[in-house]
Amino acid sequence: MLSLDKFYHAAYILKSVLRHTDLVYAPELNPEADIYLKPECLQVTGSFKVRGAYYKIATLSDEEKAKGVIACSAGNHAQGVALAATKSGIKSLICLPDSAPISKVEATRKLGAEICLVNGVYDDAYKRALDLRDEKGYTFIHPFDDDKVISGQGTIGLEIADQLPDADAVIVPIGGGGLISGVAFAIKQLNPNIKVYGVQAAGAPSMFNSIHDGKIECLPSVSTIADGIAVKEPGAITFDTCQKYVDEIVTVTDDEISAAILALIEKQKMIAEGAGAVSVAAAMFNKVPVKGKKVVCVVSGGNIDVTILSRVIKRGLLMSGRTCALNLELIDKPGQLQGVAGIIADLGGNVISIHHERANEGADVNGCYLRLLLETKNFDHIEEIKKALLDNGYHFAANYK
Amino acid sequence: MLSLDKFYHAAYILKSVLRHTDLVYAPELNPEADIYLKPECLQVTGSFKVRGAYYKIATLSDEEKAKGVIACSAGNHAQGVALAATKSGIKSLICLPDSAPISKVEATRKLGAEICLVNGVYDDAYKRALDLRDEKGYTFIHPFDDDKVISGQGTIGLEIADQLPDADAVIVPIGGGGLISGVAFAIKQLNPNIKVYGVQAAGAPSMFNSIHDGKIECLPSVSTIADGIAVKEPGAITFDTCQKYVDEIVTVTDDEISAAILALIEKQKMIAEGAGAVSVAAAMFNKVPVKGKKVVCVVSGGNIDVTILSRVIKRGLLMSGRTCALNLELIDKPGQLQGVAGIIADLGGNVISIHHERANEGADVNGCYLRLLLETKNFDHIEEIKKALLDNGYHFAANYK
Repeated sequence: MLSLDKFYHAAYILKSVLRHTDLVYAPELNPEADIYLKPECLQVTGSFKVRGAYYKIATLSDEEKAKGVIACSAGNHAQGVALAATKSGIKSLICLPDSAPISKVEATRKLGAEICLVNGVYDDAYKRALDLRDEKGYTFIHPFDDDKVISGQGTIGLEIADQLPDADAVIVPIGGGGLISGVAFAIKQLNPNIKVYGVQAAGAPSMFNSIHDGKIECLPSVSTIADGIAVKEPGAITFDTCQKYVDEIVTVTDDEISAAILALIEKQKMIAEGAGAVSVAAAMFNKVPVKGKKVVCVVSGGNIDVTILSRVIKRGLLMSGRTCALNLELIDKPGQLQGVAGIIADLGGNVISIHHERANEGADVNGCYLRLLLETKNFDHIEEIKKALLDNGYHFAANYK
Repeated sequence: MLSLDKFYHAAYILKSVLRHTDLVYAPELNPEADIYLKPECLQVTGSFKVRGAYYKIATLSDEEKAKGVIACSAGNHAQGVALAATKSGIKSLICLPDSAPISKVEATRKLGAEICLVNGVYDDAYKRALDLRDEKGYTFIHPFDDDKVISGQGTIGLEIADQLPDADAVIVPIGGGGLISGVAFAIKQLNPNIKVYGVQAAGAPSMFNSIHDGKIECLPSVSTIADGIAVKEPGAITFDTCQKYVDEIVTVTDDEISAAILALIEKQKMIAEGAGAVSVAAAMFNKVPVKGKKVVCVVSGGNIDVTILSRVIKRGLLMSGRTCALNLELIDKPGQLQGVAGIIADLGGNVISIHHERANEGADVNGCYLRLLLETKNFDHIEEIKKALLDNGYHFAANYK
């Protein structure tokens, strides 16, 4: 059973480990709303997860502590448990699938955890963790479906109520539902007038579907750049709590999540991971009523893989007209490339890459293809370059992919 | 003449416009030092420049204010002046070369400035700004060589002395020298035991050279990703102040700056521009004595162009073994590509792009080239993939570029 006194107890216990995360005012993210960010990406370990893990561990018996804890995660929960255990002076063992990114494995090891790499995927690592729990007597730290874990995450709700008492709404990412269960419970106990909205990735709408259908459902598969909330099935406690206390759950697409990550970079100089940015995506794209409201978006974490960040930025550049790919059909005679290059240079376009190819089956026997990737200023600039190329007698390839 | 009372006056005046920037503890950036960041990337307008501009404008006479101010900048100074003027209720005109990035022009206009696009480069825009000053009686706001501007920037020194009184050293980026002049003067007045180090980009070492040679020197050209500090010549006041109060000036390369930007993203979830990251680069690469010391790095701004950010990340991925380019020489018969793709997939490599080319002049008449770009885990992973390809009878192209 959740109760507010546990939340306050968690807040007291957590004082010694948490970094204080002040709200950041970010009105530019949606000019029609007063948006504030709760930047848990700046929390120790780069996400809120340490809150629940540390409180859970703090409430274990001495006997349980002596045996140590075990968890299964390739992400933020692993780092949260590792740091929490190390700070509590107890042993932690983290099971991960051996396909987990080296960087995450190393980050977890560095925080003091012992690592158990398991052949296979997440479910195999999970099973191994439960087996080890039974064999060795470790306490299993569930990533979300646990009263203590939820109470720890709920301290974010207490802080928001304290930092912005006149908020109209709080928007919270949902994976398994631990974070939103804590935040919604805390907020609704303190001030039921504040709306609590949940956001899932459109590619992993497990809680969204389950709440909609009134029963816990399991997705056959999940696919989203927000890997931190790619959870197939909500927990029993979190499902009940969301049913009771969450006003509405919405979903956002990967393109919307990418746009939110980019906006946080450009406007707030802040790095969020996909899971952390879904709340901002929902506010930016008016998925929930934010117009004229004071809204707090919980940015739950910032541990984005740089490879993914690079892809997000690339996509964002394409979508905002700051890069563009052109495919030209040229007559294969000297001077053609020079002509094209001259037009682009004159208009201030910057060539990133060129691919020149003769004898493609689609081309005229005397023709060839020129594929260009350009840095451009915006969509108008792209149109200007395209028009100049056409005006100078160049043609775009129609069927070239 | 600089004097501490002006700095305190500036701090008082600036209270109404500044965002409070707390120091951020960042020990992971160099495990041998206690590093703190002064995150002026989180300042309003995304850089410290608003401090000097607003204080300068606040001290103008009513007559000067009635006429308005003019500045020349395509970057942070433009935005600082624009916001400062708007907040002061006066008119600002910003001259920019017409080659300036649209995004910066728009950001400056949004802050309330009138924009004057000038044909040519920075020097042309600068000349035009001076002409307009003379014609219309605007007050020209110099980006760095001005007592009032320096006093405004120096409020950062007051804040650091207050926030970390037992600091051993402060590391500050140098372009024209306005920021470091203010910070060094403030710090040395309050506690001369705190070292003040300056950092320039190796591609724009104007103050570095000038201090070294004991006289102001002008660089023929500058080239660095840290465009915010790509200044050809220090000011007269800033040169004198640096001579008197700065302990040492060092330079960092673009690769070191890129590494610092990436480290800030991955470890601190913070976006810095090149100019803002040079202080962190100096601390990371031990360019100044930081071992065992409490060091504050001033991260002066975060307005990095996303295109450049994308390049920095790409370079960082290559340099840390997380992407790799391979060039193979294949016999041109069916099944070769499948074989290569199978080996890479089995080892967990992820293909980003493939370029397959026959009949290159360097190749055997029966041969062809395969150029692969892969996502990899680290350098060991790359070696593992290379070895597996060699063991399976594939060859790397020697002379292929």
